[in-house]
Amino acid sequence: MGENEDGEIIEHHVNEEMEKRHLTRRPGSFSEVAKLSERERHSNTQSSHRLLAYSDALLSIIATVMILPVAHTKIQDNEELKESLQQLLTTKIAVYLMTFLIVTVAWAAHIRLFQVIERIDDCLALLNLACMMLITFLPYTFSLMAAFPENILGILFFCGCVVVIGLIQAVIVLYGFSQPFLLNDQIQVSENLTFYKKHILKVILRVPVFCFVAIIFSLIFPPMAYVILAFVIFFPYISQLVKWCHGKAVGRQEETPESMLFYSYHPNEPLSKERVEAFSDGVYAIVATLLILDICEDNVPDPVEVQHKFNSSLVVALQEFGPEFLAYFGSFATVGLLWFVHHSLFMHVTKSTRLMGILNTFSLAFVGGLPLAYQLTHEFTQNSRNELEAIQISCVIIFFAGIFQLAIWVVALFSQHETLHPCVHYGGQDHAFMLAKLSLYPAVALGTFFITCVLSEFSAPVFHLTQIVVPVAFLLLRLLVRVALAVLHWLFCPHRPTMLDLQGEQDSRLDFNDVVT
Amino acid sequence: MGENEDGEIIEHHVNEEMEKRHLTRRPGSFSEVAKLSERERHSNTQSSHRLLAYSDALLSIIATVMILPVAHTKIQDNEELKESLQQLLTTKIAVYLMTFLIVTVAWAAHIRLFQVIERIDDCLALLNLACMMLITFLPYTFSLMAAFPENILGILFFCGCVVVIGLIQAVIVLYGFSQPFLLNDQIQVSENLTFYKKHILKVILRVPVFCFVAIIFSLIFPPMAYVILAFVIFFPYISQLVKWCHGKAVGRQEETPESMLFYSYHPNEPLSKERVEAFSDGVYAIVATLLILDICEDNVPDPVEVQHKFNSSLVVALQEFGPEFLAYFGSFATVGLLWFVHHSLFMHVTKSTRLMGILNTFSLAFVGGLPLAYQLTHEFTQNSRNELEAIQISCVIIFFAGIFQLAIWVVALFSQHETLHPCVHYGGQDHAFMLAKLSLYPAVALGTFFITCVLSEFSAPVFHLTQIVVPVAFLLLRLLVRVALAVLHWLFCPHRPTMLDLQGEQDSRLDFNDVVT
Repeated sequence: MGENEDGEIIEHHVNEEMEKRHLTRRPGSFSEVAKLSERERHSNTQSSHRLLAYSDALLSIIATVMILPVAHTKIQDNEELKESLQQLLTTKIAVYLMTFLIVTVAWAAHIRLFQVIERIDDCLALLNLACMMLITFLPYTFSLMAAFPENILGILFFCGCVVVIGLIQAVIVLYGFSQPFLLNDQIQVSENLTFYKKHILKVILRVPVFCFVAIIFSLIFPPMAYVILAFVIFFPYISQLVKWCHGKAVGRQEETPESMLFYSYHPNEPLSKERVEAFSDGVYAIVATLLILDICEDNVPDPVEVQHKFNSSLVVALQEFGPEFLAYFGSFATVGLLWFVHHSLFMHVTKSTRLMGILNTFSLAFVGGLPLAYQLTHEFTQNSRNELEAIQISCVIIFFAGIFQLAIWVVALFSQHETLHPCVHYGGQDHAFMLAKLSLYPAVALGTFFITCVLSEFSAPVFHLTQIVVPVAFLLLRLLVRVALAVLHWLFCPHRPTMLDLQGEQDSRLDFNDVVT
Repeated sequence: MGENEDGEIIEHHVNEEMEKRHLTRRPGSFSEVAKLSERERHSNTQSSHRLLAYSDALLSIIATVMILPVAHTKIQDNEELKESLQQLLTTKIAVYLMTFLIVTVAWAAHIRLFQVIERIDDCLALLNLACMMLITFLPYTFSLMAAFPENILGILFFCGCVVVIGLIQAVIVLYGFSQPFLLNDQIQVSENLTFYKKHILKVILRVPVFCFVAIIFSLIFPPMAYVILAFVIFFPYISQLVKWCHGKAVGRQEETPESMLFYSYHPNEPLSKERVEAFSDGVYAIVATLLILDICEDNVPDPVEVQHKFNSSLVVALQEFGPEFLAYFGSFATVGLLWFVHHSLFMHVTKSTRLMGILNTFSLAFVGGLPLAYQLTHEFTQNSRNELEAIQISCVIIFFAGIFQLAIWVVALFSQHETLHPCVHYGGQDHAFMLAKLSLYPAVALGTFFITCVLSEFSAPVFHLTQIVVPVAFLLLRLLVRVALAVLHWLFCPHRPTMLDLQGEQDSRLDFNDVVT
């Protein structure tokens, strides 16, 4: 792959030579110019960083788009929340969760693709935009499919989109391999470029082929088409499971290390940590601002209405909308603090794997439901059964969002030498601190849930109290953990002076700023 | 500032020592442990990269939030667009533009703050979240102020938010200067840390003080409060202008280089390029998906309705929603390609300045209006006067969005040695290519506008044709520019062989993939 290495070196040369040329301003001879002009072509390649950031932003918006129909479903206070919730649960929430899953699958495929193709040029950027346009259309086609399961039009649209997306991705791969300096360095220097090309194309084209089969079946026997679509999503996991079981049954088989690196669906396959963060940031940001979007649109009182209905008193008019603001601040704070935990978590994770990615997706899917739950808690009259249930749903959602974050941590601990920063390995103080951070929300949510079960009449005050206590707890967490550890130490081995005691002494000399967090 | 330098070195040591400790697993002596534990505190500081990315995502969502009420205003086909537009223009669009401006001012202040504080710890992260929560509330308070200009409640809320935001930022600065290892390296090693602290606090606290004055005036003489608020936003620019005029009048005065670096409002003050990109990416992503959000929410036909109204024919029902899809694909493609131009532009810009940031803000503000304009073009009957006007508005918006991007380029060219990559300096081929990329959209928009003025009956076909032609033009741009340059060369100096001819020869030997883009 001499050419590729040249490609690399050339890029550096171009810049240097450009600089030189700029200084001297006159190219020396024609041959030099000719050489240069050929090299210039390579200078059009770019790091794909920003393209991926933009794609992540688009995908995170699209992943959360289907929560809007759920959030905007008007629930009447007079009917029981449970009944209307059952309606919601069966259709809109299912559609939300499924589209979230589908978009994250598309996102994972996008990551895989751009782990192979590391540099881009204008043509790839435009192809990627076309691909994104179709991906953003997937939620609509899916919701059409869900609304009209009998009608084959929905499945035709959906499969049509997926087929075209798959073909564009295949074109991107072919284009990338035709200009190897765009590829990942590892693939560039590898001997069997054609093996990679075939393997990757095989994996990518599997999806459109299956969808094409689904289209054909939808014309003959529609239910089979849905089975095939479900199979497409879960196929990699099923095949991994089968492989794993097979491996366990006949004794461990070594996999070819080359096929391992790209487009394997092994749980330990590395996943770009940067992109997991970018996608999560996008989702957290949208979910945090979801309620303010509604407030800005609907809750600015109409001047005419205020004059007639509220006797020109804006204060009275705004009191009507008061609960909405509380819901907004509550959900913003909760989503923000969950982001904060996520941020601390991925600061300590040095390498993220596909399994972590899946757990992160589950956590994000629950986070997406938070604004809705918060909105519900403020929509019902005080101490009604509906309010109690809305609060309990909020607790359940927070609990699961937090517990999946904790699960990421647990998975990371299993291979801590590879995936974690040394300072948070088992037994360190930072480890205890991180664990406390991660378990604060699940613990509080679980506690609130049980309190509301027992003392149902105090559910609202308890819930609102947690809204205020949790941020303070995060601010003082480092102090609290130190105190807890000191107490534990004092209880179980009071005679041996330890790190913690020494630290405690030092801390007492430090001012407030140093102690908090 | 020996302490600060220690802080830096310590961070590196911690990691190494941690690693060592992990290998040996047993700390040697108590003194070593004590030393270590003190150092561990420093390991809690983190790069602020992800916090800023999350803040940028939140701010870009909030900046564009007020376009939603504009987009969702139902315009009736029977009344003239002009009349309803006048209503829109006076209130909602003005509110959108003002909130966009206010949020970008807050964003610029946020950039300034985190150019000084480069590392964060948990406490700063939580303070920043609190600050963000209040910033996301600004558009609502502003639209309340705009809806009820007579009522002082709006101005009280707005100013209250700004005062608290300013105070939180002041706390962040105080916290940062109390732990100097969190600060920018340049400030850390500087002699007059207190000078910086005072200067920065002075600039930050100016805004809440003015707002406090505005609150007091709102109780006495409300109009004065609005004047003060307008003054707060434009004060830095006015003061710069006065300084500049003064400098011109009495002869150039050298400014103190130290106060130049941070919190000056000089047009050449560096602006973090990374954050300009992140904020722009966020805005482009939201604007691109704005229409699909509506489509997903409103345009999935109701099964019951389809059965009764459309005789169970989903195809007929979807045809009702057809124009919406076209508008979506059109606006996604246009926004995507404007992003693509922005991406190419900032790839060549090596250092962005405050002036570029302002021009970028103007460009983004116009981009935010695009989906609305596209939606309008498809809402009216063919060949109506409303449709023509909607198409012309779209052209005007695209033109201005493009022309401000071009303005960034022109500004960058004025100090090209500092701000541009050498390969795009005047006269290079990449320079011509970049110029073509930047001027394609303004030129097409201007052309379409004049064609629709002259041939008003063909306005819709012409507009739709540009939707298809422009992406192809971008794909073939490199080829087109080369042909154009070769033709120009042939026309004006046909006898001298140049770089371009040689390149042309080489190109003819290259395959299709190499030539396009």
